Amino acid sequence: MMTQVDIILAGGTVVTMNESRRVLENGAVAIKADQIVAIGPTDQIKAEYQASETVDCGGRAIMPGLINAHTHVPMTLLRGVADDLRLDVWLMGYMMPIEREFVSPEFVALGTKLGCAEMIRSGVTTFCDMYYFEDDIAQATADAGLRAVLGQSIIKFPAPDAPNYEDSLAYCRKFIQRWKGHALIVPAVAPHAHYTCPPEILLACAELAREFDVPLHTHVSETALEVENSRAEHDMPVVPWIRRHNLLETKLIAAHCVFIDEGEMHSLAHAGAGVAHNPTSNMKLASGVAPVQRMLEIGVNVGIGTDGPASNNDLDMFEETRLAALLAKGFSGDPTALPARDALAMATCIGAKAVHLGDITGSLEVGKRADIIVVDLDPLHNSPRFGRDPNAIYSQLVYVSKSSDVRHVFCNGRWLMRDRLLLTLDEVAIKQEAQKVAAKIDQFLAAREGDILSKLLAIGGLAEEESFEVQVKARLEGVASVLAFVTDLDNIKQTKSSRYRQYDTYFSFADPEAGQVRIREDIYLDEHDRPTPRTRTRLTLIGPTHEREFTHSIVLNRSRYTARGDQSVRFYREYFQPTSVQEISKLRHRYRVLYQETDFAINIDRVLEPAQSGYFVEIKSRTWSQNDAEKKVIIISDLLRRLGIEDSQLVKQEYSSLLATAQLA
Amino acid sequence: MMTQVDIILAGGTVVTMNESRRVLENGAVAIKADQIVAIGPTDQIKAEYQASETVDCGGRAIMPGLINAHTHVPMTLLRGVADDLRLDVWLMGYMMPIEREFVSPEFVALGTKLGCAEMIRSGVTTFCDMYYFEDDIAQATADAGLRAVLGQSIIKFPAPDAPNYEDSLAYCRKFIQRWKGHALIVPAVAPHAHYTCPPEILLACAELAREFDVPLHTHVSETALEVENSRAEHDMPVVPWIRRHNLLETKLIAAHCVFIDEGEMHSLAHAGAGVAHNPTSNMKLASGVAPVQRMLEIGVNVGIGTDGPASNNDLDMFEETRLAALLAKGFSGDPTALPARDALAMATCIGAKAVHLGDITGSLEVGKRADIIVVDLDPLHNSPRFGRDPNAIYSQLVYVSKSSDVRHVFCNGRWLMRDRLLLTLDEVAIKQEAQKVAAKIDQFLAAREGDILSKLLAIGGLAEEESFEVQVKARLEGVASVLAFVTDLDNIKQTKSSRYRQYDTYFSFADPEAGQVRIREDIYLDEHDRPTPRTRTRLTLIGPTHEREFTHSIVLNRSRYTARGDQSVRFYREYFQPTSVQEISKLRHRYRVLYQETDFAINIDRVLEPAQSGYFVEIKSRTWSQNDAEKKVIIISDLLRRLGIEDSQLVKQEYSSLLATAQLA
Repeated sequence: MMTQVDIILAGGTVVTMNESRRVLENGAVAIKADQIVAIGPTDQIKAEYQASETVDCGGRAIMPGLINAHTHVPMTLLRGVADDLRLDVWLMGYMMPIEREFVSPEFVALGTKLGCAEMIRSGVTTFCDMYYFEDDIAQATADAGLRAVLGQSIIKFPAPDAPNYEDSLAYCRKFIQRWKGHALIVPAVAPHAHYTCPPEILLACAELAREFDVPLHTHVSETALEVENSRAEHDMPVVPWIRRHNLLETKLIAAHCVFIDEGEMHSLAHAGAGVAHNPTSNMKLASGVAPVQRMLEIGVNVGIGTDGPASNNDLDMFEETRLAALLAKGFSGDPTALPARDALAMATCIGAKAVHLGDITGSLEVGKRADIIVVDLDPLHNSPRFGRDPNAIYSQLVYVSKSSDVRHVFCNGRWLMRDRLLLTLDEVAIKQEAQKVAAKIDQFLAAREGDILSKLLAIGGLAEEESFEVQVKARLEGVASVLAFVTDLDNIKQTKSSRYRQYDTYFSFADPEAGQVRIREDIYLDEHDRPTPRTRTRLTLIGPTHEREFTHSIVLNRSRYTARGDQSVRFYREYFQPTSVQEISKLRHRYRVLYQETDFAINIDRVLEPAQSGYFVEIKSRTWSQNDAEKKVIIISDLLRRLGIEDSQLVKQEYSSLLATAQLA
Repeated sequence: MMTQVDIILAGGTVVTMNESRRVLENGAVAIKADQIVAIGPTDQIKAEYQASETVDCGGRAIMPGLINAHTHVPMTLLRGVADDLRLDVWLMGYMMPIEREFVSPEFVALGTKLGCAEMIRSGVTTFCDMYYFEDDIAQATADAGLRAVLGQSIIKFPAPDAPNYEDSLAYCRKFIQRWKGHALIVPAVAPHAHYTCPPEILLACAELAREFDVPLHTHVSETALEVENSRAEHDMPVVPWIRRHNLLETKLIAAHCVFIDEGEMHSLAHAGAGVAHNPTSNMKLASGVAPVQRMLEIGVNVGIGTDGPASNNDLDMFEETRLAALLAKGFSGDPTALPARDALAMATCIGAKAVHLGDITGSLEVGKRADIIVVDLDPLHNSPRFGRDPNAIYSQLVYVSKSSDVRHVFCNGRWLMRDRLLLTLDEVAIKQEAQKVAAKIDQFLAAREGDILSKLLAIGGLAEEESFEVQVKARLEGVASVLAFVTDLDNIKQTKSSRYRQYDTYFSFADPEAGQVRIREDIYLDEHDRPTPRTRTRLTLIGPTHEREFTHSIVLNRSRYTARGDQSVRFYREYFQPTSVQEISKLRHRYRVLYQETDFAINIDRVLEPAQSGYFVEIKSRTWSQNDAEKKVIIISDLLRRLGIEDSQLVKQEYSSLLATAQLA
């Protein structure tokens, strides 16, 4: 008597990706509800099973759906927004400001739909995510019918979905409680990375993951710098550090692992951790190439991921798998490294193990979920086919097949795409909505790009207040009398003095109304003018010069915005893209004094680059009002007289314009 | 009055790739006959031109067709036939034997049709080829309507289309005379490489190219080994070597250039040479990554090629361009290296210059040929689109667009593909024919794989004759009496003696009928048994043991095929894939003697690995007939008696089986 099933996929090349990597020509797979119930020669399956529907798969491969082991799926909405930039400019200059502005439950739901649609079209049936508002991502994914391990991000900074990590953890707990046990969704805890999560967060995340026995998804050793920093701060590379905080006691999914050593690989293997290799992202951001072949040899389950589409810029696992196979060869110098069969295993059965779903998906085996794709093997670009080599089928699928060759997709026994038609998502509507969001982001960025202040605000850390200064500057041949004055306590009360080598970089822009950005790095000097380890970097937006002039060339500066300068000059140059850059360095002796019960700073400067003879003396005081400014102007005039500085010695310009002229002269 | 044109492509994003990289949103391109006659805003073009046909390109890019700067297009028929092998095994074990057997005018014509069809579908309008029977390739290409620079291969070995290089040059001259001036086809001279073309061939090729002012296409510095060899043999790297042979005085197209130094880059730039970068092939064969960014900085025109599909395994220039952009970053550690715009320039305008067609194709400019493709910009995988960054269009095309997004293709003003339908080629018929060829190649390889002799014959260099030997072997504790005998000229006439360290590697196979392959490396020793630089390597197929035994364990060996062993043991191991490998080394003193006017070899062997006590003495003589063999058996019996060797000391086995037993014992 024939057994009733729902669907038979018949007459195809069945690429099981089971332990023995069995391949059946003219094979068939029988599906009942969410399960694979039989695999065998077509004749035999047809003789034993009666199906509601039989799908002819002649000239096609019947194979497990692909596993995208690491992504940030809502970022599909941000693909191509900013490319070919350095990691820090890309991340802190674009991704984080945009995310702060736009990421919401609606944003992630739409981005998830867009990403799921693309993944279904390219043969993915399972993905592993890390983002914000994972609860909304879970709902959109379940509606789309895809399987996913979804990691709720936890990070020390305020996040779009939580002002602090405690709230984030609480959100994550609720998220896990809501979704645990769902047929498609596996909730997970996702501490963003060891360098954005201090020990207490790492420990709390590991505890939460263990409490619910859910996976823990995090970034590990993506860049060389990250590992250097870990060694410098913790005296160990990243894997021992996260092991110390119990992450290896969870069902760990470690994304990247570009820079890990043999010992770390063994630790990961021993812990049963999964690794997600992201070749396109690692190339595009110039991070490096993970030692995939070696990890596999040691027994680590290494899957393949696309990473977020903002750094890829798509979710195409066929391309990703091909790139993994190519890079393993090109970087090792060994053309036999990671043959096609092994690369495809990473994208299927090993990938499933890497995301801790190896028992239910990743291969075609009786009893596993019916996560199956059917791929054309005879489009023009994949002709002809050779049959001699049993590995030829893997070579076809890895080196040639394109995502556009995927004909049908099933997940959990459900049709998601049939003859390239999506059955669970409205492609046109999603594209329209996505375009609306893109237009808003374009507007946001355009407004910002046109205005240096907005751009400065966007990267954060700015003291958002204007500061006003009354100041005068003089050029002197010698400073003996000035020094004598400021050190004579009869005249003046010195509250503080310091010395530093001051490096200023000025960015100018085509539009002079844009003002200038000054990056100032101070290296503090000891009493013998030798550098100390103490440094300070500040960023100042110097507004266009609408200064008011008082007597004696004393000017009132306004509109100075100052921010912490915690990035490199190179970062700021690539971020602000100035039309010209000017560098000035000087030796500054700074005296804070009280004169006539008023606080002043007196700077005695020697300009070293571009080299200037003599000295500059500056007298400055903060102010808050027109009245106060006028009062201080009188005191400064008096000070100038006492210091023996004459009007002819006064200069009005900023160092930047003063020395630009000097250079031209 | 409106000007009449043939076609207007309207309402698209026109990506001109002209010098200023102009991009027009809602732009149009007017085509008349084979030329671009106007480019501008759609409204303006529609106001000024009247077209027989206007094609709506809304949501699409209108851009120059891609230039595939290096391929071997008929090898499309060989894609996937053998993968994940080392270069030498792949080339000498598979490609060359298959080419010797199958390459014919019909083969190249079919392969060209298949390749052209695939290239048209993926947006290529110009390709640069190097293969055999280029005349037939030219005809098939012209019929398909593609533009191509076609290089007739010239090589020192017998080739499928010429028994020697003089014939090859004569063929090439006729080929050039026939095609020079054709609207689509540019004939070229293609000396395969500096290491397969001795100086006289290089010089003759350069002269021919200059005589007709046609391009010269060759392989340059693809692997590190190639450059090492050039330095060792010529005391210079490859570019100076080919310059010395006048190649830089031609319109040179240098494929690969993975390992060239700054000086060589300047030489190429100065000579106006083009370089073809082949990222997939260089990765897949683990050659390395060409210094593309540096070459471009120096001013070399670097295009992008797919290389032959046997090492790729397709002709997809979208993938190739993306990989070029990714590798430049990943290998340099600089994520701003080779931004998308520059990568696309390599695939279009710079690529056209690289193949010396920059004046007529590679960009959309009035007066250039209408080599144009129209690419969908809004498929799901490329949504949403951002408009802020003027480089976003390049980022879309390079990082995301797929060959399957190409909608329309024009070459020389002619429609080649419309709405993904090929208009000049019959896809179904081509695929069927290709599959028939693949089946024959499968058969050929299957027969060969099953038979070690065929496999040995396939790699060439075999002395295709059986040799017969009468031989006897004895195991002795001492050899004083043997040595005394062979050095006593009263007994024997010694014609020659030599000493060597002999390394034997035996390959055995599952089927004992397959016989054994022995690779024997002899290192000649001086009179103090110290190694000399003289070595010799031979390959012997030892047939299954059907030896005939005479008295005294004297055996008649037959069926020994011997070949030059000019490859490494590693090569042979990967090529023959034996089920077991056995290594034996010995110290051999060999005496060639005349005894009773008969020629014998007497070997006195000490087996060093696996270490054996005592000595083995072998007496051997070549024979040609049963009668001769029986006569020699009698003489050998006499010799054994004179040497004091008793029957109990005789051993019958080959060293391989003798010592395999010894190891087990």
